[in-house]
Amino acid sequence: MNGGPSTLNDAALMSRTDTAVAQAIDAHGLPDALAQAMRYAALGPGKRVRPTMVFRAAQALGLDLHAAGSASAACDAAAAAIEMVHAFSLIHDDLPAMDDDDLRRGRPTTHVRYGEAMAVLAGDALPALANDLLLAVEPAPLACGLAAELNRATLDMIAGQVRDTFPDAVPDAAEPLAALRTTHRLKTGALLRCACRMGGRCGGADPAQLDALTRFADAAGLMFQVVDDLLDVTSDPATLGKATQKDAAAGKRTYPGVMGLEGARVEAQRLCDRALAALEGFGPPAEPLRALVAALARRQR
Amino acid sequence: MNGGPSTLNDAALMSRTDTAVAQAIDAHGLPDALAQAMRYAALGPGKRVRPTMVFRAAQALGLDLHAAGSASAACDAAAAAIEMVHAFSLIHDDLPAMDDDDLRRGRPTTHVRYGEAMAVLAGDALPALANDLLLAVEPAPLACGLAAELNRATLDMIAGQVRDTFPDAVPDAAEPLAALRTTHRLKTGALLRCACRMGGRCGGADPAQLDALTRFADAAGLMFQVVDDLLDVTSDPATLGKATQKDAAAGKRTYPGVMGLEGARVEAQRLCDRALAALEGFGPPAEPLRALVAALARRQR
Repeated sequence: MNGGPSTLNDAALMSRTDTAVAQAIDAHGLPDALAQAMRYAALGPGKRVRPTMVFRAAQALGLDLHAAGSASAACDAAAAAIEMVHAFSLIHDDLPAMDDDDLRRGRPTTHVRYGEAMAVLAGDALPALANDLLLAVEPAPLACGLAAELNRATLDMIAGQVRDTFPDAVPDAAEPLAALRTTHRLKTGALLRCACRMGGRCGGADPAQLDALTRFADAAGLMFQVVDDLLDVTSDPATLGKATQKDAAAGKRTYPGVMGLEGARVEAQRLCDRALAALEGFGPPAEPLRALVAALARRQR
Repeated sequence: MNGGPSTLNDAALMSRTDTAVAQAIDAHGLPDALAQAMRYAALGPGKRVRPTMVFRAAQALGLDLHAAGSASAACDAAAAAIEMVHAFSLIHDDLPAMDDDDLRRGRPTTHVRYGEAMAVLAGDALPALANDLLLAVEPAPLACGLAAELNRATLDMIAGQVRDTFPDAVPDAAEPLAALRTTHRLKTGALLRCACRMGGRCGGADPAQLDALTRFADAAGLMFQVVDDLLDVTSDPATLGKATQKDAAAGKRTYPGVMGLEGARVEAQRLCDRALAALEGFGPPAEPLRALVAALARRQR
C-alpha cells in the first residue's frame, strides 16, 4: 500500500502516528505499569489502517501533510486518537469474558501479558487519552467536530460488538446477510468511516465531500470485513498472526459462511469498486486513498 | 443535604440528572440489551454527589438553574456526563478481575445482573456517551473545556485505580499516608474536582474562581474518602448497601488503618473546614455547595 504521488509513504505515516501516540501516553504522568500496557497495545505490530486513512483522506482534500500548521497537527492528533480507540477495542474484545483470545498480531494479548485487571484499565484509559488529545486541537469547533466523530464511532463500534457477542439479542437475525452487514457496518465500519471523516474535517471538507468520504468508507469498511472473514477461513495462523477458523468454531455468522467462498470474493471486489466510485470527484489528490483501499482488498493478513 | 436558599433542592437536581442521562442513552438507538445495562448502572439508587456538585458549583458562581438557556443546559449535560463516567468506573471496578464485588448500592452489580461481557461493554459505552453529550454543548470552546476536564479526570481516576489495585507498583509506598492521599486524590478526588470545575465553567468562573473551586474540591474529595473508609469499618452492610470490612480483608491501606479511628475522624473534620475556607470569597450563592460538603461529612452511607 504505497502512497502514490505523495512522498510521504505509509511507513512514514505509521511512524508519525506512533510518535504522536507515544508522546500522548508519556505526557500524562500515568503510572508506569499502566503506560506500559497502553504502549504494548497501541504501539505493537499492526497495519495502522485507520490512522493512514485519516492522513490519506486529508490529502484527498488537498492538505499538504509536509506543511507545518494547525491542520497537519490536527491530522496527527486524529490519527493517534483513532489508533488508541482501535487498540482499546482490541484489548477489551480479547478479554476472557469476551472473545477470550490469547494471540493478537503474533503476540500474547494484553491481558495475557499484563493480567486482566491491567488490561481492563489500559483499555479504559486509551479512549480518555484519545479524547484529551483531540480536545487540544485548534480551533475549538474543529476539536469538537473531531471528538464528536470519535465518540459516536466508539458507540457504534460497541453496538456492533454487542450484536456480535449476543446475536440472539438482534431482532433482525432472521435475515442473515442484512444482519451481518449491519453488525459489521457498526463493529468494523464505524471506525473506518470515522477515520475518513476526521481526515476530511482536518482537510476542510465541505458537507458534500464529507458525504462522499462517508460512502467511500462504508464500502471500504464492509470490504475490509469480508476480506477479514475470508482470511479467517483461507489463511494459516502463522501468516495471520492470530488464531484462524475461530468464527466457525464460535458459531459466528461470516460472509463465506452465508454466501460461500467465491460469493464472498465477488462481494469484496464489488465493494472495492463501489468505494473507488465514491471518490470520483476528488481527482489526483485522492490517489493515495485509492491505493490504500486497493491494498486492503489484496491484503494477506 | 438541602439546597439552602435555592428552591431547587437536591431531589430536583437528581431528577434533572437522571432525565438527562436517560435521554442521552435513549437518543442513540443503542441495542436494547446494552441500553438496559447502562440504565441499570447509571440510573439505579445512588447519591448523585458529582452531578449535584456540578449544579451547586455553577450556582456558587451565580448561575440561575431555573433560567432556560445555554449555561443551564450545559450544566445538565455536565451533570449527566459526570454521573455516566462515575457509573462506568463502578461497573469496571466491580468486575471479577478487579475488586470482584457482587453487591453495589444494595443491588447485584452490573456483571452479576447482566453478565461480564455486557458489563465490560456498558462500562465502555458510558464515557463515550458522556463525551458525545458534552460535545453538543454550545459554544464550542465551553464544550471543549468541559470535555477536556472530564477526560483528564477520567485518566486521573484510572491512575488512582491502578495505584489502588497494584500498590506494589507505587514507588512512594514507603510513606503510607502520602501514598494513600495521592491514590485517593486521583481515584475519588479527580471526579469531584472535575464536577466543581465543570460547574464553575458552566457558571462562567474566572481562573481565580476555578482555582478556589479546585481547592474546595480537593479537600472535599479527600474528606469524602476518609468518611468512606470510616463507614467501611463502622457501618453494617444493610445500611451501607454494600459489603463492609472489605478494605481490611483485601489488605488495602485505609485512613483508619493508618491513623486510627479517632485520627481519621479528626482528619475528616479538618478537611471539611479546609473545603469551606476555600469558598470564603463566594458569599451567599455558595451556600448550597457549603451545605453539600457538610452533608457529605455527616453521611451514614
